[in-house]
Amino acid sequence: MASRPTLASLAEELGLSRQTVSNAINAPERVKPDTLRRVNELISASGYRPNAAARQLRTRRSRNLGFRLMPTGDGINGAILDRFLHALTENLQDHGYRVTLFAARNDEAEMQSYEELLETSDLDGFVLTGTHHGDARTDWLMARDIPFVTFGRPWTGSGNDEDCAHSWVDVDGQAGTAEATTYLLGRGHQRIGFLGWPAGSGVGDDRRAGWASSLGTALPPSDLEALAIGVDDGARQGAEGARQLLERGATAVVCASDSLALGASEQLRAAAPGTPPAVIGFDDTPVASALGLSSVAQPVEAAAVAIVDILRHVLDGAPEQPVPVTHRLLKPRLVLRDGGGPLASPHTH
Amino acid sequence: MASRPTLASLAEELGLSRQTVSNAINAPERVKPDTLRRVNELISASGYRPNAAARQLRTRRSRNLGFRLMPTGDGINGAILDRFLHALTENLQDHGYRVTLFAARNDEAEMQSYEELLETSDLDGFVLTGTHHGDARTDWLMARDIPFVTFGRPWTGSGNDEDCAHSWVDVDGQAGTAEATTYLLGRGHQRIGFLGWPAGSGVGDDRRAGWASSLGTALPPSDLEALAIGVDDGARQGAEGARQLLERGATAVVCASDSLALGASEQLRAAAPGTPPAVIGFDDTPVASALGLSSVAQPVEAAAVAIVDILRHVLDGAPEQPVPVTHRLLKPRLVLRDGGGPLASPHTH
Repeated sequence: MASRPTLASLAEELGLSRQTVSNAINAPERVKPDTLRRVNELISASGYRPNAAARQLRTRRSRNLGFRLMPTGDGINGAILDRFLHALTENLQDHGYRVTLFAARNDEAEMQSYEELLETSDLDGFVLTGTHHGDARTDWLMARDIPFVTFGRPWTGSGNDEDCAHSWVDVDGQAGTAEATTYLLGRGHQRIGFLGWPAGSGVGDDRRAGWASSLGTALPPSDLEALAIGVDDGARQGAEGARQLLERGATAVVCASDSLALGASEQLRAAAPGTPPAVIGFDDTPVASALGLSSVAQPVEAAAVAIVDILRHVLDGAPEQPVPVTHRLLKPRLVLRDGGGPLASPHTH
Repeated sequence: MASRPTLASLAEELGLSRQTVSNAINAPERVKPDTLRRVNELISASGYRPNAAARQLRTRRSRNLGFRLMPTGDGINGAILDRFLHALTENLQDHGYRVTLFAARNDEAEMQSYEELLETSDLDGFVLTGTHHGDARTDWLMARDIPFVTFGRPWTGSGNDEDCAHSWVDVDGQAGTAEATTYLLGRGHQRIGFLGWPAGSGVGDDRRAGWASSLGTALPPSDLEALAIGVDDGARQGAEGARQLLERGATAVVCASDSLALGASEQLRAAAPGTPPAVIGFDDTPVASALGLSSVAQPVEAAAVAIVDILRHVLDGAPEQPVPVTHRLLKPRLVLRDGGGPLASPHTH
C-alpha cells in the first residue's frame, strides 16, 4: 500500500510550514489565495482524496463514526431518531468509538459532508438513516469503499433488499402494522382504516402493506382501497384524514406515525365521546404514552446494538478477512394502552 | 511553545513503528503488554497529556467540539436537550465546526472522556450541559485552559453567577415561572401551587423562586410554604404532588417540567371534569403541545446561536487577544394553550 501523504510530506514538497498546509485544509480563509491554490493542487495530485482516505480506514483507527443529524420536524416522530442516536452513541462508546455529528439539508449536502469529513477528519465510517429508493449516498460510499451501515433498508422497490450489497439493519414495519390490524380485528373491528403518507415512500408503503395483508381476507379489495388514506405527516393532517375515514365507515384506524395517531384519536374521540378511540400509532413516542395511545414500538436499542456489531466486525476485524454483508430485520412490538386518555394504565394483551 | 510529541517522534524514540504506537493509544488490546507499558511510560514522560493538548487548542484547528449526550429519561424532558443539540450542530456547522458526541454515566466519567478525547482526538473545546452546584467538570477544564461554554449557569449557590470565570449561556427559568404565575393570577387564581423537584437543584430552586416572587404579595408566607411541593420528576409523581396541592386548596399549578404538568393536568381534570386544567408546564415539549397544555418555552435555538458566537470568538479570534468571559441569560416565552385537551387551539394572550 502506498504511504498516505501527510501534512509533513505535503509541507516539505511545497516548501511551506506544516501549519500553513494545515490552515489551507482546515482554515482556508487564513491562507493567501495563491498558497491555497498550490496546496490544493498538490493535494489533488498526491492522492490525498476520499479514495485514499478510504484505503486507510482499515488500518488507521480514528475510532470516530460520522452521523447526520436529521431535522427534528414536529418533535414527535423525530424523537425516534434521537433515541436511536442515544443508543448508538452509548453502544459505540462501550467499544471505544465516538460519533461525529453533522447537519445537512439534503442527501447532496450529506455527500458533500462525507467528502469534507473524510478529508479533514479521520472517520472510520458512517451510520446512515433515512434510506430511500434511489439513495445516492450508499452508492457514493460503496464506490469509495467507505465502511458504513444503514439503519433502514435500501427500498429498491423490487423487493430484493436482501440482495443489497451493503449492510443494513431495519425494523419490520409491515409486521408491526399487521400485528396492530390483527389486534383490532380481534377486538371486533372490521372496517379498519389505514392512515399513512402519500404512496411512494418505502417506509410508508411497507407499513400500509402490513395493514392490507392482515385486512385482506376480511374485506373486499374496493373497501381496502377506500379505507387507506395518504396525507403529509402531522397531527392536523391526521385529524383530517381520520375524518374522511370515519365518513367511509371506518371504526378503527392504524397509523403510520404517532403524529397521525394524535390527530386521528382526537377525531374518533369527538365522534364517539366516552369511548376510548381505537387508534394505533407507530413509534411509541412520549406523546403516545402521555395520551394513552397504543403504538408500535421500534426496538431502537437492539437496532443500535446490531449496527455496532456489524461495524466492529468491519472495523476491528483482521484487514485481510472478507467483510460479510449483513442484513438484520428486527421485529417491532405492539404496546397496548386503553386509549382512554392521559395516564391510562396499559392493559395486558 | 515546545513542539507537541507526535506519533512519529514517539515511535522514533522507542524504535517502534508508528502503527504500533498508534495501536497502543487507540487499540491497546492489540499490543503486547510490555510494549504497551513502554509506550505509555514515554507518553507520560513526554508531556503528551491534556495539558499539552490544551496548549495546542488555539493553534491547531480540528474544528470539532465535544458534547456529552445525557440519558433520555422519560423522553419528555430530555427532548429539550435533543433540540438544543440539533440547534447547536446546525449553527456550528454554519461556521465549519462539527460535534463529537460521547456518553458518560456521570461527571467523573465525563472528565475521563475529556482526557481520552483530548489525547486521541484533536478537539477544539467542549459544550457542557447539566451544570450544577460544585460542578467539577468546569474546574477541570479551566485548570487545563480548555475552551468551553456551558449551557447552564454554575449555580454557585451564592447568587454570583455573574462573577463566574467561564462563559455560560442560560435561560432565565425564574422569569418563566414568574410570568406563568402572574398569568394565572390575572385569570383570578390566588392559591396557585408550585410543583417542582426536591430542594437543592439550582434549576429547580430557580424555577420555584419565580413562582414565589410573583405570588409573594398575594399570599401569606405560611401558605407559600404549603403550596410548594418537591417530587422526583415524572408524570406519576406529578399526579401525586398535584393531588396533595389540591387537598391544600390549590386551584392552579405551575410546574418545573412538562412531565410533572402531564400528571398534574390529569389530577385537575379529574377534580373538575369539563374545566380546562389551570396547569402550566416547562419546556414546551411535544407532549405539552399534544395535550393542549400551556408551557414555558426555552429559546434553545437562540441559546445555541449565543454559544456558537462565544466559541467562535474564542477559537477563531486572534490567539494574542484576551478572550472575554461572556454570560448570557435569555428570556423564555410563555406559550398559552387552553388546556382543554389534545389539539386545542392556542389562544392569544
